[in-house]
Amino acid sequence: MNRRNYCLVCLMTVMAFSSARAQDLVKEDFSPSEVNQPGKQYPQVNSEGRVRVQLEAPDAQYVQLDIGGVKYDLTKNEQGVWIGESAPQEEGFHYYQLNIDGASVPDPGTRYFYGAGRWGSGIEIPAHDQALYALKDVPHGLVSELSYYSEITGSSRRCFVYTPPCYEERGDNRYPVLYLQHGSFEDETGWPGQGKAGLILDNLIAEGKARPMIIVMDNGYAFRPMEVQTATNPTRPAMVFEEVMIGEIIPMIDKKFRTIDVRESRAIAGLSMGANQTMRIIMNNLDKFAYYGGFSGTANYPSAADIDADSFLGGAFSDGDRINEEIKVFWLGVGTTEPEVFPQSIGAFRNMLKKQDINHIFYESQGTAHEWLTWRRSLYQFAQQLF
Amino acid sequence: MNRRNYCLVCLMTVMAFSSARAQDLVKEDFSPSEVNQPGKQYPQVNSEGRVRVQLEAPDAQYVQLDIGGVKYDLTKNEQGVWIGESAPQEEGFHYYQLNIDGASVPDPGTRYFYGAGRWGSGIEIPAHDQALYALKDVPHGLVSELSYYSEITGSSRRCFVYTPPCYEERGDNRYPVLYLQHGSFEDETGWPGQGKAGLILDNLIAEGKARPMIIVMDNGYAFRPMEVQTATNPTRPAMVFEEVMIGEIIPMIDKKFRTIDVRESRAIAGLSMGANQTMRIIMNNLDKFAYYGGFSGTANYPSAADIDADSFLGGAFSDGDRINEEIKVFWLGVGTTEPEVFPQSIGAFRNMLKKQDINHIFYESQGTAHEWLTWRRSLYQFAQQLF
Repeated sequence: MNRRNYCLVCLMTVMAFSSARAQDLVKEDFSPSEVNQPGKQYPQVNSEGRVRVQLEAPDAQYVQLDIGGVKYDLTKNEQGVWIGESAPQEEGFHYYQLNIDGASVPDPGTRYFYGAGRWGSGIEIPAHDQALYALKDVPHGLVSELSYYSEITGSSRRCFVYTPPCYEERGDNRYPVLYLQHGSFEDETGWPGQGKAGLILDNLIAEGKARPMIIVMDNGYAFRPMEVQTATNPTRPAMVFEEVMIGEIIPMIDKKFRTIDVRESRAIAGLSMGANQTMRIIMNNLDKFAYYGGFSGTANYPSAADIDADSFLGGAFSDGDRINEEIKVFWLGVGTTEPEVFPQSIGAFRNMLKKQDINHIFYESQGTAHEWLTWRRSLYQFAQQLF
Repeated sequence: MNRRNYCLVCLMTVMAFSSARAQDLVKEDFSPSEVNQPGKQYPQVNSEGRVRVQLEAPDAQYVQLDIGGVKYDLTKNEQGVWIGESAPQEEGFHYYQLNIDGASVPDPGTRYFYGAGRWGSGIEIPAHDQALYALKDVPHGLVSELSYYSEITGSSRRCFVYTPPCYEERGDNRYPVLYLQHGSFEDETGWPGQGKAGLILDNLIAEGKARPMIIVMDNGYAFRPMEVQTATNPTRPAMVFEEVMIGEIIPMIDKKFRTIDVRESRAIAGLSMGANQTMRIIMNNLDKFAYYGGFSGTANYPSAADIDADSFLGGAFSDGDRINEEIKVFWLGVGTTEPEVFPQSIGAFRNMLKKQDINHIFYESQGTAHEWLTWRRSLYQFAQQLF
């Protein structure tokens, strides 16, 4: 090829490339996701929030990126590497997977997270307010893994416990405790992992915005052991998380950690299913807790119907004055782009609170859906109200 | 089909099935692996140590199980599900992956572990002595995650810290510390994860076989920040783990935890690359440590040549009497089925120790290779010799 023809080919290549890109309107400022495995260049995220993945699969017939309920087809290059990107995703944390010839598998480029009922890939679309949960050069608390045997469930269980930076250094101080629960199809790794509970508290405490506290993150799935489970007796075991929380977890934490063992120094909160669970727990156990946080959920979910305070949860909200006296902070939060069932059921619940003249704080996370950015922001706000 | 023909077909099917199974000699007593994701039925393990995997991939051309350096072809059934098994694997923990049309990906059925330079699938072939690291109904210590900023590397780093069951309950006791390091292409999650360090110590302490101790598990990869790294200046940054250990990790641990801050109450050990690193660290810092454990590695690796004690590691072993006086336990271990380079280099090292009349304990893990069962057993043995 002479020099002139070579230049022509180059020009045509550039034009073809630019044209394809212009059609897609994909901004070419991708960089590796912050939750990638060490040294992995893909997946990447651009400033529009698009996710670009890459996978070597020379003999595959098709590969797709499966994120946010949409499957995006990838394109194979001459080296047998498939590449492609999603539409822009909302800021925050998202679970996703790859589909290779019909097999749904984790992306080998990412770290793995438990959610949606499985350990799988996740990606972080940098949020404009990510500083609130960033890893900074401030004093860090400890996030401890604690295994224990539950007599009630007849099984080994596990919780994670955050202790604040000063906990280990001053051996006599005692601290208030927040019990913090995950949502459905998640587990006790949600809050210390993708929830970034430890980093959020480290940052709040370093700025003097939250009081040093212990946070206990346990698994909301707890079932009584079944005596007989056979094909002819497929009875589901009874859910006993409240019994485990009151009868086993709290006594264990109060024994093992330097807690302040009074109701005024104990809070309980949860997200989605965990909001529903923890609201029932506090209303049944006002002798144990004085603070409540419901993130993207209330105990009337999924109903948007008017609530009768005299019958709802056995009349737990019927005496508004008593609630105002006993619950120091009653906090509710929701993302503005969550599916309608969440704002609607929370709205119905708030109408009941208003009728009963029950004081509460209501927080809306702007532009976030039923996912972890809503809940990180909720914890950030709620923790500042505690103790 | 009449009844007689139907029976004939049934019989032929059974014979064909039995024949295939007889040829493979696969024992049909598979059960789900203990490190599967919750609710997942595959992968499974049988009493021969074979691994059987299953994956739905209706449009794949081939799917393979990639374990122990061998790729086993799976077979597709009419539902588009691929299934197949490996040859028998040695007891203990193994990393593996699936290959779908040329793509190497994690098995969506397992939990994930960091090793071989990636987060990926693992499987546990039940060992005859698994009771030593089983989760039992005994008092459990805490495994805590601690993030910290390193001035030396100019980066955030992380370690895991095991504190014994009695640590939290008796607020004034102080404890000796074991610094315990992973191998190459692994990280600080190795020992608390697949290494089961916490469970091993919980069980030893419950049986009165080991003294309660703190264990610190950090990341052996530590590099000085590069001032300039460009394509024309691709200098690898300097490895500075020893400086981080001595200058940052130990002071931080002694400040944050109730340690006994004297050399007689401090041990250091590691596996493979970590054995090599920690041997250099103790010999350069005899004022800091009095116990050493080398699991499947020594500082002369990979050489099997005779060692000259006067020049090796700057003559650190030249004065045998001094070593015997200062190092209370010098402990070496190796698996009997490890690749030759390990027993050979460790053998050359032991010959040097013998020439120098240096006391040491040598342990062989029967029938285990260069993998975590060797190292779990090594920790189990070594911890009983400490403090």
